[in-house]
Amino acid sequence: MDRSSSTAGRLARARAPLLEFRTTRRTELVDITAEVGKIVAASGIRHGVCQLYVPHTTAGLTINENADPEVARDIERALDRLVPRDAPYRHAEGNADSHIKSTLTGVSQSVPVEDGRLMLGRWQAIFFCEFDGPRQRQVRVKVVPDPAE
Amino acid sequence: MDRSSSTAGRLARARAPLLEFRTTRRTELVDITAEVGKIVAASGIRHGVCQLYVPHTTAGLTINENADPEVARDIERALDRLVPRDAPYRHAEGNADSHIKSTLTGVSQSVPVEDGRLMLGRWQAIFFCEFDGPRQRQVRVKVVPDPAE
Amino acid sequence: MDRSSSTAGRLARARAPLLEFRTTRRTELVDITAEVGKIVAASGIRHGVCQLYVPHTTAGLTINENADPEVARDIERALDRLVPRDAPYRHAEGNADSHIKSTLTGVSQSVPVEDGRLMLGRWQAIFFCEFDGPRQRQVRVKVVPDPAE
Repeated sequence: MDRSSSTAGRLARARAPLLEFRTTRRTELVDITAEVGKIVAASGIRHGVCQLYVPHTTAGLTINENADPEVARDIERALDRLVPRDAPYRHAEGNADSHIKSTLTGVSQSVPVEDGRLMLGRWQAIFFCEFDGPRQRQVRVKVVPDPAE
Repeated sequence: MDRSSSTAGRLARARAPLLEFRTTRRTELVDITAEVGKIVAASGIRHGVCQLYVPHTTAGLTINENADPEVARDIERALDRLVPRDAPYRHAEGNADSHIKSTLTGVSQSVPVEDGRLMLGRWQAIFFCEFDGPRQRQVRVKVVPDPAE
Repeated sequence: MDRSSSTAGRLARARAPLLEFRTTRRTELVDITAEVGKIVAASGIRHGVCQLYVPHTTAGLTINENADPEVARDIERALDRLVPRDAPYRHAEGNADSHIKSTLTGVSQSVPVEDGRLMLGRWQAIFFCEFDGPRQRQVRVKVVPDPAE
Protein backbone atom coordinates (compact mmCIF):
# COMPACT_ATOMS: atom_id res chain seq x y z
CA MET A 1 0.00 0.00 0.00
CA ASP A 2 1.32 3.43 -0.87
CA ARG A 3 1.90 5.33 2.34
CA SER A 4 3.50 8.50 0.98
CA SER A 5 1.80 11.76 1.94
CA SER A 6 2.18 13.12 -1.58
CA THR A 7 0.04 10.28 -2.87
CA ALA A 8 -2.52 10.95 -0.15
CA GLY A 9 -2.59 14.61 -1.19
CA ARG A 10 -3.10 13.80 -4.83
CA LEU A 11 -5.81 11.28 -3.97
CA ALA A 12 -7.65 13.73 -1.76
CA ARG A 13 -7.96 16.25 -4.55
CA ALA A 14 -10.09 13.75 -6.44
CA ARG A 15 -13.77 13.76 -5.49
CA ALA A 16 -13.81 10.16 -4.20
CA PRO A 17 -10.23 8.88 -4.33
CA LEU A 18 -9.42 5.19 -4.66
CA LEU A 19 -6.99 3.45 -2.35
CA GLU A 20 -5.23 0.67 -4.25
CA PHE A 21 -3.23 -2.18 -2.80
CA ARG A 22 -2.47 -5.89 -3.13
CA THR A 23 -3.63 -8.53 -0.67
CA THR A 24 -1.48 -11.54 0.16
CA ARG A 25 -3.76 -14.33 1.43
CA ARG A 26 -7.12 -15.87 0.43
CA THR A 27 -8.92 -14.62 3.56
CA GLU A 28 -7.18 -11.57 5.01
CA LEU A 29 -8.19 -8.51 7.04
CA VAL A 30 -5.96 -5.59 5.99
CA ASP A 31 -5.74 -2.55 8.28
CA ILE A 32 -6.26 0.56 6.06
CA THR A 33 -6.88 3.06 8.88
CA ALA A 34 -3.71 5.11 8.34
CA GLU A 35 -4.30 5.47 4.59
CA VAL A 36 -7.93 6.49 5.08
CA GLY A 37 -6.92 8.96 7.79
CA LYS A 38 -4.42 10.60 5.41
CA ILE A 39 -7.12 11.10 2.78
CA VAL A 40 -9.42 12.63 5.37
CA ALA A 41 -6.67 14.98 6.60
CA ALA A 42 -5.65 15.97 3.06
CA SER A 43 -9.26 16.73 2.11
CA GLY A 44 -9.25 19.74 4.40
CA ILE A 45 -12.78 18.85 5.51
CA ARG A 46 -13.30 19.44 9.23
CA HIS A 47 -16.80 18.08 9.84
CA GLY A 48 -18.61 15.47 7.80
CA VAL A 49 -18.83 11.77 7.07
CA CYS A 50 -16.23 9.48 5.53
CA GLN A 51 -17.99 7.06 3.16
CA LEU A 52 -15.93 3.95 2.42
CA TYR A 53 -16.95 1.73 -0.47
CA VAL A 54 -15.51 -1.54 -1.83
CA PRO A 55 -16.32 -2.08 -5.54
CA HIS A 56 -15.68 -5.84 -5.37
CA THR A 57 -18.01 -8.83 -4.88
CA THR A 58 -15.62 -11.14 -3.02
CA ALA A 59 -14.39 -8.62 -0.44
CA GLY A 60 -15.81 -6.37 2.26
CA LEU A 61 -15.16 -3.82 5.00
CA THR A 62 -15.29 -4.05 8.76
CA ILE A 63 -14.34 -1.90 11.73
CA ASN A 64 -12.81 -3.77 14.64
CA GLU A 65 -9.83 -3.98 17.02
CA ASN A 66 -6.24 -3.77 15.77
CA ALA A 67 -4.43 -3.52 19.13
CA ASP A 68 -4.20 -7.31 19.30
CA PRO A 69 -3.66 -8.63 15.75
CA GLU A 70 -5.14 -11.99 16.84
CA VAL A 71 -8.62 -10.41 16.77
CA ALA A 72 -8.42 -10.02 12.97
CA ARG A 73 -7.11 -13.58 12.67
CA ASP A 74 -10.05 -14.85 14.79
CA ILE A 75 -12.52 -12.99 12.56
CA GLU A 76 -10.92 -14.52 9.44
CA ARG A 77 -11.17 -18.01 10.90
CA ALA A 78 -14.73 -17.54 12.20
CA LEU A 79 -15.93 -16.46 8.74
CA ASP A 80 -14.12 -19.41 7.13
CA ARG A 81 -15.82 -21.71 9.64
CA LEU A 82 -19.31 -20.21 9.18
CA VAL A 83 -19.03 -20.28 5.37
CA PRO A 84 -16.79 -23.19 4.34
CA ARG A 85 -14.89 -22.99 1.06
CA ASP A 86 -16.00 -26.48 0.07
CA ALA A 87 -19.74 -26.99 0.19
CA PRO A 88 -22.28 -27.89 -2.52
CA TYR A 89 -22.41 -24.44 -4.14
CA ARG A 90 -23.83 -23.84 -7.64
CA HIS A 91 -21.49 -20.98 -8.61
CA ALA A 92 -18.72 -22.87 -10.39
CA GLU A 93 -15.75 -20.54 -9.91
CA GLY A 94 -14.68 -21.99 -6.57
CA ASN A 95 -15.35 -18.74 -4.69
CA ALA A 96 -19.05 -18.94 -3.78
CA ASP A 97 -17.98 -18.74 -0.12
CA SER A 98 -16.14 -15.46 -0.85
CA HIS A 99 -19.33 -13.86 -2.21
CA ILE A 100 -21.32 -15.01 0.83
CA LYS A 101 -18.72 -13.62 3.25
CA SER A 102 -18.92 -10.28 1.40
CA THR A 103 -22.67 -10.18 2.08
CA LEU A 104 -22.08 -10.92 5.78
CA THR A 105 -19.59 -8.06 6.30
CA GLY A 106 -21.00 -5.61 3.75
CA VAL A 107 -19.10 -3.43 1.26
CA SER A 108 -19.66 0.05 2.75
CA GLN A 109 -18.96 1.82 6.02
CA SER A 110 -19.71 5.36 7.22
CA VAL A 111 -17.45 6.95 9.82
CA PRO A 112 -18.13 10.41 11.29
CA VAL A 113 -15.42 13.07 10.81
CA GLU A 114 -15.00 15.84 13.41
CA ASP A 115 -12.20 18.42 13.62
CA GLY A 116 -10.58 16.84 10.56
CA ARG A 117 -10.26 13.38 12.11
CA LEU A 118 -12.05 10.05 11.81
CA MET A 119 -14.11 9.63 14.99
CA LEU A 120 -13.05 6.03 15.51
CA GLY A 121 -13.29 4.58 18.98
CA ARG A 122 -10.08 4.07 20.96
CA TRP A 123 -9.65 0.44 19.89
CA GLN A 124 -11.18 0.69 16.41
CA ALA A 125 -9.44 0.30 13.08
CA ILE A 126 -10.82 0.07 9.52
CA PHE A 127 -10.14 -3.26 7.83
CA PHE A 128 -10.44 -4.22 4.18
CA CYS A 129 -11.72 -7.81 4.15
CA GLU A 130 -10.19 -9.99 1.44
CA PHE A 131 -12.13 -13.20 0.84
CA ASP A 132 -10.68 -14.36 -2.49
CA GLY A 133 -7.06 -13.24 -2.52
CA PRO A 134 -4.35 -12.63 -3.25
CA ARG A 135 -5.59 -9.86 -5.57
CA GLN A 136 -5.17 -6.22 -6.53
CA ARG A 137 -7.97 -4.34 -4.71
CA GLN A 138 -9.55 -0.90 -4.35
CA VAL A 139 -11.46 1.06 -1.72
CA ARG A 140 -13.27 4.30 -2.61
CA VAL A 141 -12.90 6.95 0.10
CA LYS A 142 -15.42 9.77 -0.20
CA VAL A 143 -15.27 12.49 2.45
CA VAL A 144 -18.57 14.39 2.47
CA PRO A 145 -18.51 17.72 4.36
CA ASP A 146 -21.48 18.77 6.49
CA PRO A 147 -23.68 21.18 4.49
CA ALA A 148 -23.29 24.03 6.99
CA GLU A 149 -19.56 24.10 6.32
CA MET B 1 -41.50 -3.93 -10.68
CA ASP B 2 -42.43 -0.82 -12.64
CA ARG B 3 -39.70 -0.18 -15.17
CA SER B 4 -41.22 2.77 -17.10
CA SER B 5 -39.12 5.91 -17.23
CA SER B 6 -42.15 8.11 -16.50
CA THR B 7 -42.54 6.36 -13.16
CA ALA B 8 -38.84 6.82 -12.46
CA GLY B 9 -39.20 10.52 -13.24
CA ARG B 10 -42.16 10.95 -10.93
CA LEU B 11 -40.39 9.02 -8.17
CA ALA B 12 -37.25 11.10 -8.48
CA ARG B 13 -39.13 14.32 -7.91
CA ALA B 14 -40.02 13.07 -4.46
CA ARG B 15 -37.36 13.70 -1.80
CA ALA B 16 -36.73 10.02 -1.02
CA PRO B 17 -38.81 7.99 -3.47
CA LEU B 18 -40.00 4.48 -2.66
CA LEU B 19 -39.47 1.59 -5.03
CA GLU B 20 -42.38 -0.83 -4.69
CA PHE B 21 -42.52 -4.39 -5.93
CA ARG B 22 -43.71 -7.91 -5.08
CA THR B 23 -41.39 -10.78 -4.21
CA THR B 24 -42.18 -14.35 -5.27
CA ARG B 25 -40.33 -16.72 -2.90
CA ARG B 26 -39.73 -17.02 0.87
CA THR B 27 -35.98 -16.34 0.58
CA GLU B 28 -35.18 -14.38 -2.59
CA LEU B 29 -32.52 -11.92 -3.70
CA VAL B 30 -34.13 -9.47 -6.17
CA ASP B 31 -31.85 -7.38 -8.41
CA ILE B 32 -33.05 -3.75 -8.18
CA THR B 33 -29.99 -2.11 -9.77
CA ALA B 34 -31.76 -0.85 -12.90
CA GLU B 35 -34.61 0.74 -10.95
CA VAL B 36 -32.23 2.44 -8.50
CA GLY B 37 -30.08 3.66 -11.40
CA LYS B 38 -33.12 5.26 -13.04
CA ILE B 39 -33.97 7.17 -9.87
CA VAL B 40 -30.37 8.38 -9.61
CA ALA B 41 -30.38 9.50 -13.26
CA ALA B 42 -33.78 11.20 -12.96
CA SER B 43 -32.67 13.09 -9.83
CA GLY B 44 -30.29 15.19 -11.89
CA ILE B 45 -27.72 14.91 -9.10
CA ARG B 46 -24.19 14.49 -10.46
CA HIS B 47 -22.11 13.93 -7.32
CA GLY B 48 -23.33 12.57 -4.02
CA VAL B 49 -24.35 9.43 -2.18
CA CYS B 50 -27.28 7.12 -2.87
CA GLN B 51 -28.76 6.02 0.46
CA LEU B 52 -30.86 2.86 0.18
CA TYR B 53 -33.14 1.92 3.06
CA VAL B 54 -35.48 -1.04 3.63
CA PRO B 55 -38.34 -0.24 6.07
CA HIS B 56 -39.03 -3.92 6.81
CA THR B 57 -37.87 -6.23 9.63
CA THR B 58 -37.79 -9.52 7.68
CA ALA B 59 -35.84 -8.25 4.66
CA GLY B 60 -32.50 -6.62 3.89
CA LEU B 61 -30.14 -5.24 1.25
CA THR B 62 -26.89 -6.56 -0.15
CA ILE B 63 -24.52 -5.68 -2.97
CA ASN B 64 -23.05 -8.65 -4.82
CA GLU B 65 -22.54 -10.28 -8.21
CA ASN B 66 -25.37 -10.61 -10.75
CA ALA B 67 -23.36 -11.84 -13.78
CA ASP B 68 -23.85 -15.43 -12.66
CA PRO B 69 -27.35 -15.73 -11.13
CA GLU B 70 -26.15 -18.77 -9.16
CA VAL B 71 -24.25 -16.44 -6.80
CA ALA B 72 -27.54 -15.01 -5.50
CA ARG B 73 -28.96 -18.52 -5.14
CA ASP B 74 -25.86 -19.61 -3.18
CA ILE B 75 -26.27 -16.60 -0.84
CA GLU B 76 -29.95 -17.49 -0.29
CA ARG B 77 -29.07 -21.09 0.55
CA ALA B 78 -26.12 -20.15 2.78
CA LEU B 79 -28.32 -17.84 4.87
CA ASP B 80 -31.02 -20.52 5.11
CA ARG B 81 -28.35 -22.95 6.28
CA LEU B 82 -26.79 -20.57 8.84
CA VAL B 83 -30.19 -19.58 10.26
CA PRO B 84 -32.60 -22.53 9.88
CA ARG B 85 -36.33 -21.83 9.62
CA ASP B 86 -37.12 -24.48 12.21
CA ALA B 87 -35.22 -24.07 15.46
CA PRO B 88 -36.40 -23.46 19.05
CA TYR B 89 -37.24 -19.76 18.59
CA ARG B 90 -39.44 -17.82 21.04
CA HIS B 91 -41.05 -15.47 18.48
CA ALA B 92 -44.21 -17.38 17.62
CA GLU B 93 -44.96 -16.12 14.10
CA GLY B 94 -42.82 -18.71 12.31
CA ASN B 95 -40.43 -16.10 10.91
CA ALA B 96 -37.83 -15.64 13.66
CA ASP B 97 -35.20 -16.79 11.15
CA SER B 98 -36.29 -14.00 8.75
CA HIS B 99 -35.64 -11.34 11.41
CA ILE B 100 -32.21 -12.81 12.18
CA LYS B 101 -31.23 -12.87 8.48
CA SER B 102 -32.25 -9.20 8.23
CA THR B 103 -29.79 -8.39 11.02
CA LEU B 104 -27.01 -10.31 9.24
CA THR B 105 -27.41 -8.45 5.91
CA GLY B 106 -28.54 -5.08 7.29
CA VAL B 107 -31.31 -2.81 5.98
CA SER B 108 -29.28 0.10 4.57
CA GLN B 109 -26.57 0.59 1.95
CA SER B 110 -24.68 3.69 0.79
CA VAL B 111 -23.35 3.83 -2.77
CA PRO B 112 -21.27 6.75 -4.08
CA VAL B 113 -22.67 8.67 -7.08
CA GLU B 114 -20.28 10.36 -9.53
CA ASP B 115 -21.13 11.98 -12.87
CA GLY B 116 -24.77 11.03 -12.35
CA ARG B 117 -24.08 7.30 -12.03
CA LEU B 118 -23.92 4.75 -9.23
CA MET B 119 -20.22 3.94 -8.71
CA LEU B 120 -20.81 0.19 -8.51
CA GLY B 121 -17.93 -2.12 -9.29
CA ARG B 122 -17.90 -3.97 -12.60
CA TRP B 123 -19.55 -7.10 -11.18
CA GLN B 124 -21.72 -5.46 -8.53
CA ALA B 125 -25.50 -5.26 -8.42
CA ILE B 126 -27.88 -4.08 -5.68
CA PHE B 127 -30.14 -6.82 -4.32
CA PHE B 128 -33.24 -6.55 -2.17
CA CYS B 129 -33.14 -9.54 0.21
CA GLU B 130 -36.52 -11.12 0.86
CA PHE B 131 -36.51 -13.42 3.88
CA ASP B 132 -40.26 -13.88 4.51
CA GLY B 133 -41.91 -13.73 1.10
CA PRO B 134 -43.80 -13.61 -1.05
CA ARG B 135 -44.81 -10.07 -0.04
CA GLN B 136 -45.33 -6.54 -1.29
CA ARG B 137 -42.11 -4.65 -0.41
CA GLN B 138 -40.52 -1.18 -0.50
CA VAL B 139 -37.04 0.32 -0.73
CA ARG B 140 -36.45 4.00 -0.02
CA VAL B 141 -33.94 5.56 -2.44
CA LYS B 142 -32.55 8.87 -1.23
CA VAL B 143 -29.97 10.57 -3.45
CA VAL B 144 -28.05 13.14 -1.41
CA PRO B 145 -26.01 15.64 -3.45
CA ASP B 146 -22.55 16.72 -2.27
CA PRO B 147 -22.84 20.08 -0.44
CA ALA B 148 -20.50 21.90 -2.83
CA GLU B 149 -22.86 21.19 -5.72
CA MET C 1 -30.45 5.77 29.80
CA ASP C 2 -31.20 9.45 30.30
CA ARG C 3 -34.64 10.14 28.87
CA SER C 4 -35.09 13.79 29.90
CA SER C 5 -35.86 16.19 27.07
CA SER C 6 -33.44 18.78 28.47
CA THR C 7 -30.62 16.29 28.00
CA ALA C 8 -31.80 15.56 24.47
CA GLY C 9 -31.81 19.30 23.75
CA ARG C 10 -28.29 19.76 25.09
CA LEU C 11 -27.06 16.74 23.15
CA ALA C 12 -28.61 17.96 19.90
CA ARG C 13 -26.75 21.24 20.08
CA ALA C 14 -23.51 19.31 19.79
CA ARG C 15 -22.47 18.43 16.26
CA ALA C 16 -22.62 14.67 16.73
CA PRO C 17 -23.97 14.04 20.24
CA LEU C 18 -23.16 10.85 22.16
CA LEU C 19 -25.86 8.76 23.76
CA GLU C 20 -24.46 7.14 26.91
CA PHE C 21 -25.96 4.25 28.84
CA ARG C 22 -25.14 1.08 30.72
CA THR C 23 -25.95 -2.41 29.48
CA THR C 24 -26.97 -5.19 31.85
CA ARG C 25 -26.19 -8.55 30.18
CA ARG C 26 -23.30 -10.08 28.19
CA THR C 27 -25.32 -10.29 24.95
CA GLU C 28 -28.15 -7.75 24.91
CA LEU C 29 -30.09 -5.81 22.29
CA VAL C 30 -31.06 -2.43 23.78
CA ASP C 31 -33.82 -0.41 22.09
CA ILE C 32 -32.50 3.17 21.68
CA THR C 33 -35.16 4.39 19.20
CA ALA C 34 -36.80 6.92 21.55
CA GLU C 35 -33.48 8.51 22.52
CA VAL C 36 -32.32 8.77 18.90
CA GLY C 37 -35.70 10.21 17.88
CA LYS C 38 -35.38 12.93 20.55
CA ILE C 39 -31.97 13.96 19.23
CA VAL C 40 -33.36 14.11 15.68
CA ALA C 41 -36.33 16.22 16.82
CA ALA C 42 -34.15 18.55 18.91
CA SER C 43 -31.75 19.09 16.00
CA GLY C 44 -34.41 21.05 14.13
CA ILE C 45 -33.35 19.32 10.91
CA ARG C 46 -36.33 18.45 8.72
CA HIS C 47 -34.74 16.49 5.86
CA GLY C 48 -31.50 14.56 5.96
CA VAL C 49 -29.86 11.39 7.16
CA CYS C 50 -29.31 10.19 10.73
CA GLN C 51 -25.87 8.55 10.95
CA LEU C 52 -25.50 6.25 13.94
CA TYR C 53 -22.04 5.09 14.94
CA VAL C 54 -20.82 2.77 17.73
CA PRO C 55 -17.18 3.50 18.77
CA HIS C 56 -16.72 0.05 20.35
CA THR C 57 -15.22 -3.20 19.03
CA THR C 58 -17.38 -5.66 20.98
CA ALA C 59 -20.76 -4.10 20.18
CA GLY C 60 -22.85 -3.20 17.15
CA LEU C 61 -26.09 -1.73 15.81
CA THR C 62 -29.09 -3.32 14.18
CA ILE C 63 -32.57 -2.27 13.08
CA ASN C 64 -35.28 -4.84 13.71
CA GLU C 65 -38.69 -5.47 15.33
CA ASN C 66 -39.49 -4.31 18.87
CA ALA C 67 -43.26 -5.04 18.91
CA ASP C 68 -42.56 -8.57 20.16
CA PRO C 69 -39.55 -8.43 22.52
CA GLU C 70 -38.89 -12.11 21.79
CA VAL C 71 -37.48 -11.13 18.37
CA ALA C 72 -34.54 -9.37 20.02
CA ARG C 73 -34.03 -12.37 22.33
CA ASP C 74 -34.02 -14.72 19.30
CA ILE C 75 -31.40 -12.54 17.58
CA GLU C 76 -29.22 -12.62 20.72
CA ARG C 77 -29.44 -16.39 20.91
CA ALA C 78 -28.87 -16.92 17.19
CA LEU C 79 -25.67 -14.86 17.30
CA ASP C 80 -24.49 -16.74 20.41
CA ARG C 81 -25.15 -20.02 18.57
CA LEU C 82 -23.41 -18.95 15.33
CA VAL C 83 -20.38 -17.61 17.20
CA PRO C 84 -19.91 -19.60 20.42
CA ARG C 85 -18.17 -17.97 23.37
CA ASP C 86 -15.93 -20.98 23.89
CA ALA C 87 -14.05 -22.02 20.76
CA PRO C 88 -10.31 -22.23 20.02
CA TYR C 89 -9.76 -18.48 19.58
CA ARG C 90 -6.30 -16.86 19.67
CA HIS C 91 -7.37 -13.55 21.25
CA ALA C 92 -6.78 -14.26 24.93
CA GLU C 93 -9.26 -11.87 26.59
CA GLY C 94 -12.22 -14.25 26.50
CA ASN C 95 -14.24 -12.04 24.17
CA ALA C 96 -13.12 -13.07 20.68
CA ASP C 97 -16.73 -14.05 19.97
CA SER C 98 -17.85 -10.51 20.89
CA HIS C 99 -15.52 -8.99 18.25
CA ILE C 100 -16.77 -11.43 15.62
CA LYS C 101 -20.43 -10.64 16.40
CA SER C 102 -19.62 -6.92 16.03
CA THR C 103 -18.34 -7.60 12.50
CA LEU C 104 -21.52 -9.54 11.65
CA THR C 105 -23.91 -6.75 12.72
CA GLY C 106 -21.70 -3.76 11.87
CA VAL C 107 -21.13 -0.58 13.89
CA SER C 108 -22.93 2.00 11.76
CA GLN C 109 -26.46 2.57 10.45
CA SER C 110 -27.95 5.29 8.25
CA VAL C 111 -31.64 6.15 8.61
CA PRO C 112 -33.38 8.71 6.37
CA VAL C 113 -35.00 11.71 8.11
CA GLU C 114 -38.05 13.39 6.57
CA ASP C 115 -40.28 16.10 8.12
CA GLY C 116 -38.14 15.97 11.25
CA ARG C 117 -38.73 12.27 11.89
CA LEU C 118 -36.74 9.03 11.47
CA MET C 119 -38.26 7.22 8.48
CA LEU C 120 -38.32 3.85 10.23
CA GLY C 121 -40.73 1.22 8.99
CA ARG C 122 -43.85 0.51 11.06
CA TRP C 123 -42.27 -2.40 12.94
CA GLN C 124 -38.67 -1.13 13.04
CA ALA C 125 -36.67 -0.04 16.05
CA ILE C 126 -32.98 0.83 16.45
CA PHE C 127 -31.08 -1.53 18.74
CA PHE C 128 -27.66 -1.15 20.30
CA CYS C 129 -26.10 -4.63 20.30
CA GLU C 130 -24.07 -5.45 23.40
CA PHE C 131 -21.81 -8.46 22.93
CA ASP C 132 -19.49 -8.12 25.94
CA GLY C 133 -21.55 -6.58 28.73
CA PRO C 134 -22.45 -5.37 31.17
CA ARG C 135 -20.57 -2.15 30.28
CA GLN C 136 -20.89 1.60 29.97
CA ARG C 137 -21.47 2.29 26.25
CA GLN C 138 -21.86 5.12 23.72
CA VAL C 139 -23.57 5.71 20.38
CA ARG C 140 -22.74 8.75 18.25
CA VAL C 141 -25.84 10.27 16.64
CA LYS C 142 -25.02 12.64 13.77
CA VAL C 143 -27.99 14.22 11.97
CA VAL C 144 -26.82 15.49 8.57
CA PRO C 145 -29.25 17.90 6.84
CA ASP C 146 -29.82 17.67 3.09
CA PRO C 147 -27.64 20.30 1.35
CA ALA C 148 -30.61 22.10 -0.21
CA GLU C 149 -31.97 22.90 3.25
